[in-house]
Amino acid sequence: MRMERPREVERFGAIRFGGLQKVFELDSGLKNDGLPGKGSTVIQISYEELYEIEKDMAIVVPIRKERLKLIEGVLCGIPHQCLTIIVSNSPISPVDRFAMEKHALEDFCHFVNKTALICHQKDPLFSTAFRNAGYTGILNKKGEVRDGKAEGMIIGIMLARLAGKKYVGFVDADNYFPGSVAEYVHEYAAGFALSRSDYAMVRIAWQSKPKIIKSRLYFRKWGRTSQHTNRFLNKLITDYSGYDTEIIKTGNAGEHAMTTELAMILDYSTGYSVEPYEIVNLMEKFGGVTESLFPEVMKTGVEVYQIESRNPHLHEAGDTEHVEQMSYVAMQVIYHSPLCTQELKKEILKEMYERKFIKKGKAPPKPQLFPALCFISLKSFFKDIEAADCAQLIKEGNL
Amino acid sequence: MRMERPREVERFGAIRFGGLQKVFELDSGLKNDGLPGKGSTVIQISYEELYEIEKDMAIVVPIRKERLKLIEGVLCGIPHQCLTIIVSNSPISPVDRFAMEKHALEDFCHFVNKTALICHQKDPLFSTAFRNAGYTGILNKKGEVRDGKAEGMIIGIMLARLAGKKYVGFVDADNYFPGSVAEYVHEYAAGFALSRSDYAMVRIAWQSKPKIIKSRLYFRKWGRTSQHTNRFLNKLITDYSGYDTEIIKTGNAGEHAMTTELAMILDYSTGYSVEPYEIVNLMEKFGGVTESLFPEVMKTGVEVYQIESRNPHLHEAGDTEHVEQMSYVAMQVIYHSPLCTQELKKEILKEMYERKFIKKGKAPPKPQLFPALCFISLKSFFKDIEAADCAQLIKEGNL
Repeated sequence: MRMERPREVERFGAIRFGGLQKVFELDSGLKNDGLPGKGSTVIQISYEELYEIEKDMAIVVPIRKERLKLIEGVLCGIPHQCLTIIVSNSPISPVDRFAMEKHALEDFCHFVNKTALICHQKDPLFSTAFRNAGYTGILNKKGEVRDGKAEGMIIGIMLARLAGKKYVGFVDADNYFPGSVAEYVHEYAAGFALSRSDYAMVRIAWQSKPKIIKSRLYFRKWGRTSQHTNRFLNKLITDYSGYDTEIIKTGNAGEHAMTTELAMILDYSTGYSVEPYEIVNLMEKFGGVTESLFPEVMKTGVEVYQIESRNPHLHEAGDTEHVEQMSYVAMQVIYHSPLCTQELKKEILKEMYERKFIKKGKAPPKPQLFPALCFISLKSFFKDIEAADCAQLIKEGNL
Repeated sequence: MRMERPREVERFGAIRFGGLQKVFELDSGLKNDGLPGKGSTVIQISYEELYEIEKDMAIVVPIRKERLKLIEGVLCGIPHQCLTIIVSNSPISPVDRFAMEKHALEDFCHFVNKTALICHQKDPLFSTAFRNAGYTGILNKKGEVRDGKAEGMIIGIMLARLAGKKYVGFVDADNYFPGSVAEYVHEYAAGFALSRSDYAMVRIAWQSKPKIIKSRLYFRKWGRTSQHTNRFLNKLITDYSGYDTEIIKTGNAGEHAMTTELAMILDYSTGYSVEPYEIVNLMEKFGGVTESLFPEVMKTGVEVYQIESRNPHLHEAGDTEHVEQMSYVAMQVIYHSPLCTQELKKEILKEMYERKFIKKGKAPPKPQLFPALCFISLKSFFKDIEAADCAQLIKEGNL
């Protein structure tokens, strides 16, 4: 990987938001060539460096009814040295799709000589473990872990932590291009190679997201939803710094990774707001506006890297309802943040009324939030899920 | 890279055609893990192994008016350790596109600390060098090197040879996904890692080639043209072996690579027939049907690897005329091969009449062929192009 250093940096309390970084080479060679030297804006992260970081990285793939062909492609794209963790929320009747996914993963692992973890989001062992830990917000009325990608991510983070991984990254299962998945993971590692803090996050901005328009591909650079979300997140920064900024380019980035240390101390929100809320929560926790629960992190600092991937992002088409929903929930979490100024609240409400997300005169309901996972006792949690296959594999070690 | 061994092999004289190999992992780790062992059909080619081979590989990118955005993506996808050779046939007026390409390559090389070669197909130095070598078939009436991708490939092979590279591979410049380019190159290297002969070829079959049909992507596996070409090439083998075969899956593979030794002793044909003709010419030269000019190669043997890439192949759409033309010229070179039996000739003619490629009762004209490059004196050729920038870089070495 060879890429730009962040050319701009926006500081917000203890957080350092790096500007979008351009990638020049997907594969920059085995070893560090020691060049270009000081003063250069372009840096090389050799395969050796990426490899060492990726050995310590879990890649969580939340899945739900994606076609197995696509999932197999994603597995093929994840570098061998990463621990793959699949959290499935696929139905088990009338056809047991979860069993099919498990078998596909077993076959894959057999061929490539790898151990990967898979679990079902609704596995009662997990709901018991969360209930015993008092982490009941994640459970639905039936006492199961709720549907949703964020909930799957949370399980993934717990497993990554239990497996002792230093980094945890996320990739979606609906990607048509295994090569893009490989690129994202290498970019996560490249970001961590640059970071000087144990509390770091890497977020990917797609260079383009092709749309089919009149039977031709149009390489759309900025989706409307992303632009919206980024604009409001940037406003949130501006309201405190007094300087206009465009630093945030990855508000909705599903493709992102964190040090597990950071992943354990962030709060999460549900559904499509999970990604923008990570940024909001970072700012709440480490922005220095209110007192932080984690003074040691305030001292070390938190780093956010934003990297522009080179491959277009071509995935299975979602519906437009999702897109609207994404805009709405991003605004919702910003609106309800203690950091949100009256002025920004007004602006958000105006937008929400115009786009008919809520009725005039009303405010959006509070989003559902999950507290940080660091308050769960790892030992008891592990004991509760001990009977699960994935826990057995963790116990055996060598992941 | 982790992939299948060829499960089937078809031998034709001294040639060993390997069956299509499936790829399991794009990145299988830094070092060889020594597993899975004997009896396994899946093999790992570690990054270290790929890297060592790619250091000795030139990647030739023939370009002609492709958008610079696409070319930049392709450059980004070529691993740093490969020597990039661009052979441009873009117009230099009214806008000097070649100059733009040169500048884009210079900028890229500056950023990534790499030396790459670029030349123009119509550079008079090259036409002089070919003329002096008696290789006049490549020249048009004006005495310039003719238009055509094959002609660009030939220049690329000469430069790869002069630069002392052991392997030469080709990638098209119209690929939307830099990650696919990286995959192809790693697959070339993986094929060479398996090969036991200095005369080896690696050809890529795309797992799919997405088409836009009714505003949706349809992942077509087998293009009609490829099926046709493969069918006739397989017939050519069957006519001698007496066994039906489907071994050839890459008759039209534009993405392919060869040891430079092999590239120097093959004849080439023009236009779209260059890729299928490589297989025909291999069979003519090393099939043992007629006496070979290269008895040492007959002894060593020639290996052809066919690898199925994991990324879909998504490139700028060509027109349907090209597709028909590809079918036609593939049949044309098979028809005129001394190996083509009367029966196969009849079948080809029937197909040609049906598809109205030629008038009933006529035979297709003989294709234009270029003799092997090994008959050109490298020393004199190099002296003739000495004044070219690319020759200067070769002279300086360190490529």
